[in-house]
Amino acid sequence: MRADPAPYDRRLSRLRLGFPAAEALLILNEKNIRYLTGFTGGDGALMVGPDWLELLVDGRYVTQARGEAPGIEIVEFRSRVEGIAAVAGRHGVGRIGFEAASLTVEEHLRLQAGLPEVGLEPVAGALQTLRAVKDQREIALIREAARIAAEALAAVRDMIRPGVRERELALELEYRMRRGGAEGVSFDTIIASGPNSALPHATPGGRAIADGDCVKVDYGAVWGGYHSDETCTYVVGRPSARQEEVYRLVREAHDRAIGAIRPGIACGEIDRIARECLAEAGMESYFTHGTGHGVGLDVHEPPRLAAGREELLEAGMVVTVEPGIYLPGVWGVRIEDTVLVTDQGAQCLTPSSKDFTVL
Amino acid sequence: MRADPAPYDRRLSRLRLGFPAAEALLILNEKNIRYLTGFTGGDGALMVGPDWLELLVDGRYVTQARGEAPGIEIVEFRSRVEGIAAVAGRHGVGRIGFEAASLTVEEHLRLQAGLPEVGLEPVAGALQTLRAVKDQREIALIREAARIAAEALAAVRDMIRPGVRERELALELEYRMRRGGAEGVSFDTIIASGPNSALPHATPGGRAIADGDCVKVDYGAVWGGYHSDETCTYVVGRPSARQEEVYRLVREAHDRAIGAIRPGIACGEIDRIARECLAEAGMESYFTHGTGHGVGLDVHEPPRLAAGREELLEAGMVVTVEPGIYLPGVWGVRIEDTVLVTDQGAQCLTPSSKDFTVL
Repeated sequence: MRADPAPYDRRLSRLRLGFPAAEALLILNEKNIRYLTGFTGGDGALMVGPDWLELLVDGRYVTQARGEAPGIEIVEFRSRVEGIAAVAGRHGVGRIGFEAASLTVEEHLRLQAGLPEVGLEPVAGALQTLRAVKDQREIALIREAARIAAEALAAVRDMIRPGVRERELALELEYRMRRGGAEGVSFDTIIASGPNSALPHATPGGRAIADGDCVKVDYGAVWGGYHSDETCTYVVGRPSARQEEVYRLVREAHDRAIGAIRPGIACGEIDRIARECLAEAGMESYFTHGTGHGVGLDVHEPPRLAAGREELLEAGMVVTVEPGIYLPGVWGVRIEDTVLVTDQGAQCLTPSSKDFTVL
Repeated sequence: MRADPAPYDRRLSRLRLGFPAAEALLILNEKNIRYLTGFTGGDGALMVGPDWLELLVDGRYVTQARGEAPGIEIVEFRSRVEGIAAVAGRHGVGRIGFEAASLTVEEHLRLQAGLPEVGLEPVAGALQTLRAVKDQREIALIREAARIAAEALAAVRDMIRPGVRERELALELEYRMRRGGAEGVSFDTIIASGPNSALPHATPGGRAIADGDCVKVDYGAVWGGYHSDETCTYVVGRPSARQEEVYRLVREAHDRAIGAIRPGIACGEIDRIARECLAEAGMESYFTHGTGHGVGLDVHEPPRLAAGREELLEAGMVVTVEPGIYLPGVWGVRIEDTVLVTDQGAQCLTPSSKDFTVL
């Protein structure tokens, strides 16, 4: 299951660097627990001290935790709060930092009641930030997820023709991804045709594709816990000159943004470059969302490529670039790739062609 | 979309009866918002006062909210906290009760900062309890979800034979449910064969079904937001006498528990009856989970049919009855139906036969 324990050690070292003040960190987010230990089960808790680490699981998960996280101390609990209290007591912890976005108020009240002597301090999404730079294994998993997804889209592309309903197409695409080995889909597949393609996040419905439609396909697969994310927009039947023109403009914004990606550039700058390209054609007001986001154990994670974001890209980050133009009530075009930030620039992980394609 | 607004009015009246002390209730759980208004979108907030009601949504959902919740005041917000503060200010609300299980500590901190004059008081799962008794429309939706699911299982049952992998079978079953009209699946389908069937909640994997296996199929479909939940256990090839014997015992526990269901009986008593049946054969220690749970907008919701639960069943509740026997490392049998509590007793909503079946 776990070929190389070293990445987990490296991740823990980086985590500890980031939290010098806390006596212990309580990690409840499943993705973060997986990132730090390899354990993929649910309902666990990970407690990280300056020189100790304990993974708390209930009886259902003990065998799985031992297999997936060898060398890590596994503690079986009956109640999570009691388990956390026992570990805190054993290590004499007086203050625990916890992930404020991963604990409900209800659980927090229970935790406070169970640990009356311990100070609980909320910490914001530091772990998600830690996850932004990927290692070689993570990149390989995202690449494979993207490959599985693209192969499935290639297999159903012939179905994209007049008369086929959006919902049927979404179902077939998801089925093919899973048949191709995907553990699941990255998110509910978006198939948006005709006027629906003008909605950035339409839900596939009963609409049948018609001649002259833009058909937007936003989809992804999960492999080894890692997500892919890609959007292709096709035109069915006879495209209008306006469709081709808008497509080429979005493509230009997409290409320029990817062309600008390199370590050290601010995330907001990539967004600005995409937006500026559309502005040159007077179309920037039809691009109503950010340019991209990180992809990994979550399909949306830091960094965000959006206006004003000052975080700098680093080699090893994996982000989407997805400009779009949405003409309300008419149609829309989005072109999205997931790219790896390299020392030299960007490398595309999503393999489908983004050339203007008429089906 | 919304044929009959009256159920929503009735639900609100019952909600207000339950919270005489609160000046306003803030409802953030999507299922609860849907239950009270018909709005099915995400990221909303519902504020309920003694004689007013406002549904807060962001710009993406305004049109949808107006369509799904006609007659309800819709407030568009840019930031949820600002929206809540504005509504609280307009109605002069000094204290707000909120669902403690549906708010993270992070959001709570943001809410406190945005509403410095307002007292925020956590309330526990009262709304889930309110949802326990279903009306005719809800029952019809659950029945239809169960019908879609069972039809899909009937279509793939021939696939349950030696050599077929659990994962393939799960995928085909889910695909058929969705082709049959399901909006989604109630939960990740469990197909557990051979020794895997001894795990109450196995994940379908690469194991190929073999002659003599027990194959446990725990699955459900979603229709109109409502879930179905059913488990069939089959034997493939030649069953052993022991398999048939254990099956008949679990079936007896299942039948006795359903036979005891009626308004006014304690939930724990149904659990005790199932357990007692297994105890008569000395097998009670192999039944390692509760006997059942409510089903509705969530696949697991109150009431729980488990040891010591004193809540009384009422006509209109919909609950699962799912005793099982799990012989570790060998095989297991679970038989589950979803039943409606009626004035006279129980009516089964899941249509698949629970007779001992060899495939």
